[in-house]
Amino acid sequence: MAGSLPVSPLAPKGGFPDLPMVEGVRFATIAAGVKYTGRADVMLAELAPGTTIAGTFTRSKTRAAPVLDCQAKLGGPSDAPGAILVNSGNANAFTGIKGVEAVEAVTAAVASAINVPQARIFTASTGVIGEPLPHERITSVVSELGKSLSPDKIEDAAKAIMTTDTFPKGASRQIEIDGKPVTISGFAKGSGMIAPDMATMLVYIFTDAKLPFDELQPMVSGLCEGTFNSITVDSDTSTSDTLLVAATGTSGVDVVGNGRFAAALFDVMDDLAKQVVRDGEGATKFVTVSVKGAASDADAKQVAMSIANSPLVKTAIAGEDANWGRVVMAVGKSGAEADRDRLSISFGKVAVARNGQVADGYDEAAATEHMKGQDVNIGVDLGIGDGSSTVYTCDLTAGYIAINADYRS
Amino acid sequence: MAGSLPVSPLAPKGGFPDLPMVEGVRFATIAAGVKYTGRADVMLAELAPGTTIAGTFTRSKTRAAPVLDCQAKLGGPSDAPGAILVNSGNANAFTGIKGVEAVEAVTAAVASAINVPQARIFTASTGVIGEPLPHERITSVVSELGKSLSPDKIEDAAKAIMTTDTFPKGASRQIEIDGKPVTISGFAKGSGMIAPDMATMLVYIFTDAKLPFDELQPMVSGLCEGTFNSITVDSDTSTSDTLLVAATGTSGVDVVGNGRFAAALFDVMDDLAKQVVRDGEGATKFVTVSVKGAASDADAKQVAMSIANSPLVKTAIAGEDANWGRVVMAVGKSGAEADRDRLSISFGKVAVARNGQVADGYDEAAATEHMKGQDVNIGVDLGIGDGSSTVYTCDLTAGYIAINADYRS
Repeated sequence: MAGSLPVSPLAPKGGFPDLPMVEGVRFATIAAGVKYTGRADVMLAELAPGTTIAGTFTRSKTRAAPVLDCQAKLGGPSDAPGAILVNSGNANAFTGIKGVEAVEAVTAAVASAINVPQARIFTASTGVIGEPLPHERITSVVSELGKSLSPDKIEDAAKAIMTTDTFPKGASRQIEIDGKPVTISGFAKGSGMIAPDMATMLVYIFTDAKLPFDELQPMVSGLCEGTFNSITVDSDTSTSDTLLVAATGTSGVDVVGNGRFAAALFDVMDDLAKQVVRDGEGATKFVTVSVKGAASDADAKQVAMSIANSPLVKTAIAGEDANWGRVVMAVGKSGAEADRDRLSISFGKVAVARNGQVADGYDEAAATEHMKGQDVNIGVDLGIGDGSSTVYTCDLTAGYIAINADYRS
Repeated sequence: MAGSLPVSPLAPKGGFPDLPMVEGVRFATIAAGVKYTGRADVMLAELAPGTTIAGTFTRSKTRAAPVLDCQAKLGGPSDAPGAILVNSGNANAFTGIKGVEAVEAVTAAVASAINVPQARIFTASTGVIGEPLPHERITSVVSELGKSLSPDKIEDAAKAIMTTDTFPKGASRQIEIDGKPVTISGFAKGSGMIAPDMATMLVYIFTDAKLPFDELQPMVSGLCEGTFNSITVDSDTSTSDTLLVAATGTSGVDVVGNGRFAAALFDVMDDLAKQVVRDGEGATKFVTVSVKGAASDADAKQVAMSIANSPLVKTAIAGEDANWGRVVMAVGKSGAEADRDRLSISFGKVAVARNGQVADGYDEAAATEHMKGQDVNIGVDLGIGDGSSTVYTCDLTAGYIAINADYRS
């Protein structure tokens, strides 16, 4: 459980980054005792009037009540202030009408405490699925929470939403547009049940850039594909995946159609997505799977995900074994178009297989040396087209089993 | 590696069954040293003239040379005698033209040694992928192998094809049709890389029943769906999956259109398929996932496989944790039609969730008690239609990681 696990060996060096404040956003956290004791487990973010809020969500058929509520609220008028409230310890998922009532109670309490319209309050819950959320533990502290809002508490907010995460995840970029600074700061949680499907884990990104919902939403959805939708820890998709991007507009810089802003937002999303993989349950290796030469980008991604989700590939990596036959297997089972005799594979810079058989002069010692590093790169060339895709994952170790065989106990 | 692992705790009690001999079939085994030392690693089965041979194979896009060769040979004339030769230790997969040459060399050697047309010789290879098969180690002993053929060596044959299997797998049924006995005896290997797709691991079934290829092949394909295509150990699909059913006709009993024969063949296939799951790498629990109330049988199977392949469900089972929220998650991600608020779940006889939330009076202690048993039954009712499916799997333990993190070393 949170705090009891050693920090992932893949955690970024230097700890949580020093995230620049975003004007128009204030944070507060509190220990509400939803499930955990002795730590903050609720975070509140208050957003200035006029903030544009866009998001993407899990496509699970069993998605949680807060997810459905957020989806319904996206795209509404943005004149008023807004808020995001997140609790850890309980996912409020598969809780029937009680789940809906809990969302209603929490958003009503926040609306009353900080004077924000209920239609502009977005919530999320993360933790165990299927247990009713004891929402009165949250509503009873919301007023106190509202009184401690401050623009410099983003790190506390990042920590309050952790579950099996072993480190808080933050990222930022600052760019200048027309001589004016634009800031993007965000954080994420996620460690297991990671195979986002057009969505992500819980991720909150704030910027003082100015752009309307109709511009921000397609940008966020589009950038998801190469970031949060390109990571997998264990092929299991959450009922609660939520990404919200809030643009306060307080910089006064209109970024509509600005490629540099989109690139900076991509960088923040990419950074956070990779940190989620770096905190993959039990992970000891960060793995990049790059596929090219596919019939289409979609086929390339299907092959890359088949490799990244294969238990046999992932355990071979854990064992530092250059067992490329398992990569062949994963290509073969992917369902994507492939021709065994045009397939080439590399580990790092070492060509291991070319055109359907072991590469001439294959240097197994060099391949094994690459596997011993913390960063493992698997390259696949299907040799039949121009489609390409890169996905990120981690290895599968006994640590994953240990964490998940008794998560609830 | 074979022999060095403790026998699975799920292995059938009483060891390898006493399989009745099938007239028209003789077996031989030998230690050819393909990879293993000190054990038989090649088995030969000789089939009487007139034997009908049907089969199903992996649909992997990277399937091995012997698989392609078998597929090409199915359905040919059956007047002449036939043979099956299998080696363990090397899969002869992803070996390019060398793989094709190896199959050619081995089948030519068998043809010459026991006087069987090359077009009636089916081979398979199982073991490491990507290393050229040292086929001369096999061809040099084929003549000696041919001299030791005997109808009572089926157990030796079952053992010779083992890789990470911890026990040999055999099954048989005998029925009477029109007062005459008909026998079916078969064996299988398989433990990891088990998620057959319209195919299976290596399975060989022999019967003295009489029926032509045009009748046997659709029967075998059809029965696969509920047997070998309904099991999964780790969601990884082999490059070599092969099931062959050989009907010698020596009983003189024509079984065309005989439902009791089909049922007996189903029983043998079902028995062997479940034994493969019982030898799942690292397995400590045998898990049955039954899904009903789906929009279609295909949807039910998609949901059942999503549950059976979920690392989080499988680790919860390993931890004897009645964590039904993970079953909800696996239903949600499956892609099949589902309505969260009509979904019901049971563990054994314990109703854990009903219509989208925890069941009234849910008895977690009773559910946990069920999880502590060796046989775990997960029932799911989607509540939207008449589709149903049952699949079989095992739990995911640290033993799986240990076996697969250093398979090749």
